[in-house]
Amino acid sequence: MTAVGIIAEYNPFHNGHAYHLAQAKMLTGAETTVVVMSGNFVQRGVPAIFDKWQRTSLALEGGADVVYELPFAYAVQPAHLFARGAVNLLARAGVDTIVFGAEHAQLDFLALAKQARSLLMSNQAFRTDYTQTYATVFNDVLAQATGERLSEPNDLLGFAYATAVLELDLADEIRLLPIQRIGAAYHQTAITDSQIASATALRDLMQRRVSAHEYEPFVSSQAAGLLSQGPQTKEWSTDWYHLLQYKVLTTPVEELSTIYQLNDGLAYRLKEQITRQTDADYQTFMTSLKSKRYTWSRLQRTLLYTLLNIRQQEMQQALGQPYLRLLGASKAGRAFIKQQRKHVSIPVVNRVTHEDTTDILTLDYRAGKLYELMIKQPVRQAMDTGRIPLFTE
Amino acid sequence: MTAVGIIAEYNPFHNGHAYHLAQAKMLTGAETTVVVMSGNFVQRGVPAIFDKWQRTSLALEGGADVVYELPFAYAVQPAHLFARGAVNLLARAGVDTIVFGAEHAQLDFLALAKQARSLLMSNQAFRTDYTQTYATVFNDVLAQATGERLSEPNDLLGFAYATAVLELDLADEIRLLPIQRIGAAYHQTAITDSQIASATALRDLMQRRVSAHEYEPFVSSQAAGLLSQGPQTKEWSTDWYHLLQYKVLTTPVEELSTIYQLNDGLAYRLKEQITRQTDADYQTFMTSLKSKRYTWSRLQRTLLYTLLNIRQQEMQQALGQPYLRLLGASKAGRAFIKQQRKHVSIPVVNRVTHEDTTDILTLDYRAGKLYELMIKQPVRQAMDTGRIPLFTE
Repeated sequence: MTAVGIIAEYNPFHNGHAYHLAQAKMLTGAETTVVVMSGNFVQRGVPAIFDKWQRTSLALEGGADVVYELPFAYAVQPAHLFARGAVNLLARAGVDTIVFGAEHAQLDFLALAKQARSLLMSNQAFRTDYTQTYATVFNDVLAQATGERLSEPNDLLGFAYATAVLELDLADEIRLLPIQRIGAAYHQTAITDSQIASATALRDLMQRRVSAHEYEPFVSSQAAGLLSQGPQTKEWSTDWYHLLQYKVLTTPVEELSTIYQLNDGLAYRLKEQITRQTDADYQTFMTSLKSKRYTWSRLQRTLLYTLLNIRQQEMQQALGQPYLRLLGASKAGRAFIKQQRKHVSIPVVNRVTHEDTTDILTLDYRAGKLYELMIKQPVRQAMDTGRIPLFTE
Repeated sequence: MTAVGIIAEYNPFHNGHAYHLAQAKMLTGAETTVVVMSGNFVQRGVPAIFDKWQRTSLALEGGADVVYELPFAYAVQPAHLFARGAVNLLARAGVDTIVFGAEHAQLDFLALAKQARSLLMSNQAFRTDYTQTYATVFNDVLAQATGERLSEPNDLLGFAYATAVLELDLADEIRLLPIQRIGAAYHQTAITDSQIASATALRDLMQRRVSAHEYEPFVSSQAAGLLSQGPQTKEWSTDWYHLLQYKVLTTPVEELSTIYQLNDGLAYRLKEQITRQTDADYQTFMTSLKSKRYTWSRLQRTLLYTLLNIRQQEMQQALGQPYLRLLGASKAGRAFIKQQRKHVSIPVVNRVTHEDTTDILTLDYRAGKLYELMIKQPVRQAMDTGRIPLFTE
C-alpha cells in the first residue's frame, strides 16, 4: 500500500484542493493521500478561519485519507522552515512522493535546489547579507546559478520543498512531483466562472457574508454551509489586536526581547509603537511598524509569537521535537497508518494527554487554547485535550 | 502653614468625603488638607470607576488642597502595607496629623497598636500561623492583649495606620486623629435619606444607570453629572476577565510562579481553573478558585498582579522606592508644597518623563496604560506621560 503526500493549509478547503488530491493519486498510482496540514494558525501568522477539526473534516470529505497536523513550530514560519518541517513529517509518515502545485510545473525543482545550494555554500556573501529576507537571498542565489528567478508563490514553495529534501538527505526516499496549478492563482481575489476559486477569494467572499449557494460552485455543500456562517475568528481583527496591545503594554521591553524573533531592536520598536497610541487600529499600527527590513508576513508571525508568549528557547525545543499528530483518517488511511506503524520513528499523538500539554505539545496546546478563547460561541470546544481523531468510512 | 493628612480612595468622591475634609481642618486648625489617594486601581484589586484625574478633580472641588497618588505598590495591598505606604508619604509630605474616620473613634489606636505589637514580638505562635490572614492574626493578638476585637473596616484601617506610625518610628512626628464616621457604613448598599451615601452604595446605583438628579443628594453636581455617565471601566467585567484568561493561557506555570503573591501552589491552581473551562464567567471562576486560605480581596489583588505581569522583584523594588506624585493642588495647597519643598526627602514627580516610565514609575505607568486600554472611549487620554497636575484657584 503506497501513499502520496501533500502539504496544505486548507484555509478553507475548496474544489482546487479536491482536484489536487485526485490528481496526486492518479499521477502516482498511490492508494492513499497523506496530508500534513497547518493547525489553528497559518503561515502568514494569522488564525485560520476555521479550526483544525473543521478543516480536517472538509479535507476528509474532499479526498484526503490521512490528515496530520503540521505543528505550530513549523506551520508559522518562513517558507524554508515550513517546508522542512512538513517534508520531514511526510517522510516519517511513510509517503514516497510529495505532490505540490506549481505555477511552472515543468521546472526541475530538485536540480534547481542542488545548484542553488552548492553556490550558497561556496559564497559567503549570500549568507551574511542580513538586510535581505531569506527568500530574496535564496532567489538571488538561484538566479545566479541557473538564470531562473522564481517569483510565483507556489514555485517558491516547491523550491523550498526541494531544498528541504536535500537538507534532510531524503533525495533517495522522497520524490517531488510538481503539478501544474489550474484555475485561480494564489493571490487571485476575483471569483471567476470556473469551478476553482482561490482560498483568498473565498475568504474575501466570507467578509461579505454571502449565502451558501454563492460558495457552491467552488466548494462542497458541507463547506458552503460552513462558509456561509462566517469565520470562527477573524484574522487580525480588533479582538486580536486588543490582546496584543495588552501583552505589549504589560511586558517590559527586556522581557519582550526574549520572545522568538523579537530581537534586533524590534522589541523596542514594538513597545514604542503600541505605547505611543493606544487608540490606533491594527492597520495603522502595522503601517507604523513596517519597514523595508521585514515582510508583512514576517512581522505578523512575530506578533503572533508575541501574543503566544513563545520564547526563543521554547521554539528551538519545539523545532527539535517533530511528532505526528493525527487529526483524522479514512478507512484506507487507517489501513495505511497501521501498515506503517512499525516504521515510524517519531512520536505519534492520537490523543493528547495532560503531560503532552506541557511537554511535546506545549506550543500547539497554547495556540489551541488561544484560538479557543477567541472563538465567538456560547460553548467553545477544546482544541486538544479530550479530542479524538475524526474517522470516516 | 500646617497641613492635615487624609488617606482615601474616593471611588467615587461624595458628601461624606467633603464632610471629612472639612472636619479634619476644623478639628486640627490646619490651613490645608493633603490627601494621599489610590491611583487607577483600588485596594480590593479592581480598577477605580473613574481614573485618578477625574477623582482628583472631584476631590479638589470638594475641599482637598493637595492630592498625591498612592503608588500602585502600596495602594493594591492588604491593609498593613497600604497603611504603611500612605502614612509614610503623608509624613514625607509634611503633615503633622492624619485624620481618619472610624466606627469607634473613642479608641486609642496608637495604644492598641503598641500593645499588639509587643505581644506579637514576644509570641512566636502568632507569626507562624500562615493559615490565617494577616488581619485575623493581628486581631487575635489585639484581642488577647486588650480585650478589644476590631471588626469594622475603618477601625481596622485605623489600627493599621497606628501600626504603621510605630513601625516607621513616626510617633513623635505624626498625630493620629480618629473621627466618628457618620451616615453610611462602609459596606452599606442602601441609599438612605441622609446626605451621606457610601461609595459602595453609589457604585451600585451606577450599575442601574440612573439619571444625575438621583445622585445629587449625595455628591456635588459635577460628580452627579459624571456618575450619570456610568463608570469609565467596569470592575472585573467580562473584558477584564478575558484578558486574565488570555494571560494565564499563554503563560507557563513556571513563569506564572514568578508573579508577586502567585506562589504556594496558587499559580498552579490558577492555571488549572482557567484552562479547565474557557467558557466560565468571572464569578464562576472566582468561586472555583476561592478557598478558606485566601480572602476574596487577596485573590483579586493577586489576579491584578497577574494581569499586570508584576514580578516579585518588581514589587519589592517599587515598595522600596516611595515618591510623591502630585495629581492636583489648590492655591493654598501649592503654597504648602512650596513651603515644604526643602524638607521633602523622597522624589517628587510633577511630570512623568520617559525615564520615569521604566524606572521609579514602572508599575504605576503600566497600571495606567492598562487602565487606559480598558476605557471605552473613542479617544483615550494617557494616564501619565504628557499630563500635568490639576491646579485650581
